[in-house]
Amino acid sequence: MIVIGELINGMYKAVGKAIRDRDQAVIKQLAKRQADAGAHYLDVNTGPFSKNQKDDMQWLIETIQSAVDVPLAIDSTKPDVIEEGLKIAQKKAIINSTSADPEKMETLLPMAKKYGSMIIGLTMDKKGVPQDRVKRVELAAQIVAQCMEFDIPTDQVLIDPIILPINVAQPQGPEVLESIREIQIISDPPPKTVLGLSNVSQGTKFRPLINRTYLVMAIGSGLSAAILDPLDRELMDAMIAAELLTNKNIYCDSFLDAYRKR
Amino acid sequence: MIVIGELINGMYKAVGKAIRDRDQAVIKQLAKRQADAGAHYLDVNTGPFSKNQKDDMQWLIETIQSAVDVPLAIDSTKPDVIEEGLKIAQKKAIINSTSADPEKMETLLPMAKKYGSMIIGLTMDKKGVPQDRVKRVELAAQIVAQCMEFDIPTDQVLIDPIILPINVAQPQGPEVLESIREIQIISDPPPKTVLGLSNVSQGTKFRPLINRTYLVMAIGSGLSAAILDPLDRELMDAMIAAELLTNKNIYCDSFLDAYRKR
Repeated sequence: MIVIGELINGMYKAVGKAIRDRDQAVIKQLAKRQADAGAHYLDVNTGPFSKNQKDDMQWLIETIQSAVDVPLAIDSTKPDVIEEGLKIAQKKAIINSTSADPEKMETLLPMAKKYGSMIIGLTMDKKGVPQDRVKRVELAAQIVAQCMEFDIPTDQVLIDPIILPINVAQPQGPEVLESIREIQIISDPPPKTVLGLSNVSQGTKFRPLINRTYLVMAIGSGLSAAILDPLDRELMDAMIAAELLTNKNIYCDSFLDAYRKR
Repeated sequence: MIVIGELINGMYKAVGKAIRDRDQAVIKQLAKRQADAGAHYLDVNTGPFSKNQKDDMQWLIETIQSAVDVPLAIDSTKPDVIEEGLKIAQKKAIINSTSADPEKMETLLPMAKKYGSMIIGLTMDKKGVPQDRVKRVELAAQIVAQCMEFDIPTDQVLIDPIILPINVAQPQGPEVLESIREIQIISDPPPKTVLGLSNVSQGTKFRPLINRTYLVMAIGSGLSAAILDPLDRELMDAMIAAELLTNKNIYCDSFLDAYRKR
């Protein structure tokens, strides 16, 4: 499982303030703590209130890279902000994200090719997020086909079938699990799959329970990556156990410690 | 999910002693606590050290039935002990269990028919437990076909693909998950599926974490029932959340309480 730490996002109050105040210590600490907890990538998002997203993205990335050696998922709805990040990313990054909208893909896929980045493709288009798995898989196939056109290897593409909050879109829970399975057979080699996990529990009580339960089921369905809070220790324990039980890490009695020490 | 409480088993020291001493209070309390915690059935097993299994089974069942109104899973390797239980069970019981061994089926399936019981069918034969899912599904199909011969409705059959301890048979974890999926398409209506959950964590550290992680993945694969410890509150929470996230119970903010109060 590829763990993408979600905490450096201007949407969170403390991060938004740190960005405005150019307070490096807050960002560096969040970067270090997430990396120490097992994040393989750090998501970087200036948040919706940033007045100069390009400047803020640049500052965030430079700050993070001065603290840790972990690659980044550069997260913005604006292609020019993403490119600003790609220019200075020291390691192979993930573009977060394109949709299946042709205009969006025509802007972002050449960028993924140019910078040798991975790219997250959301199974949505101008009509929004589909209700069922059939349309999700159809959009995933469109994204994968388009990536092939732009000569991006399919295993560098992470398809996100988009899990919506359980309290407003409960029937989509199993649909997304089934999408994860089906997306793995749309090409050979298949694209990877990814979820923005915390979304499933948005607005609910018992958020950590819902997050870790859904993550475990998604791993059972073959999920390759998740954007999540790596500081949630029970979530990480559940993830480690799920990888063990799907035979992806070798069992040893101290498997939790062993995973963390890698 | 059908929850079958596993705690009334002579294999456990306190239960074995209660059986020998004919100490009703211990058994009644275990029955009540499991029922209160959400067990839909109670497994009853005299354990390996019982000197008169028929007598012990009779005493256990009478004791349980004097305390709770919950149906039983009558658990023995000996058909005559099972029949002793079926004779006095007040509610429709589950026979736990037959294998795919023809001799065993020829004894137990007529018993299931005679008493109108459900029956658990283990995907094993005289050669033991298969290594992979293909053989598991083949044995499941043999059991289901034989049940049809004996005019037992397939939805009254619970196929147990047998999860082995992760520390000795790790590759079988995902094989059993896939078996659960495939067993659901071997007949229409399909048989139910069941796991003896605690087996997965036998001999490991972090048993509760392993149990609940595997249960959640199995529910994601469509599991219908599990023999488990209903007093493990975190396990039950995980199960309730998994049923919610697969859209089997309706979401409400207080979903944990709502499930328990049903």
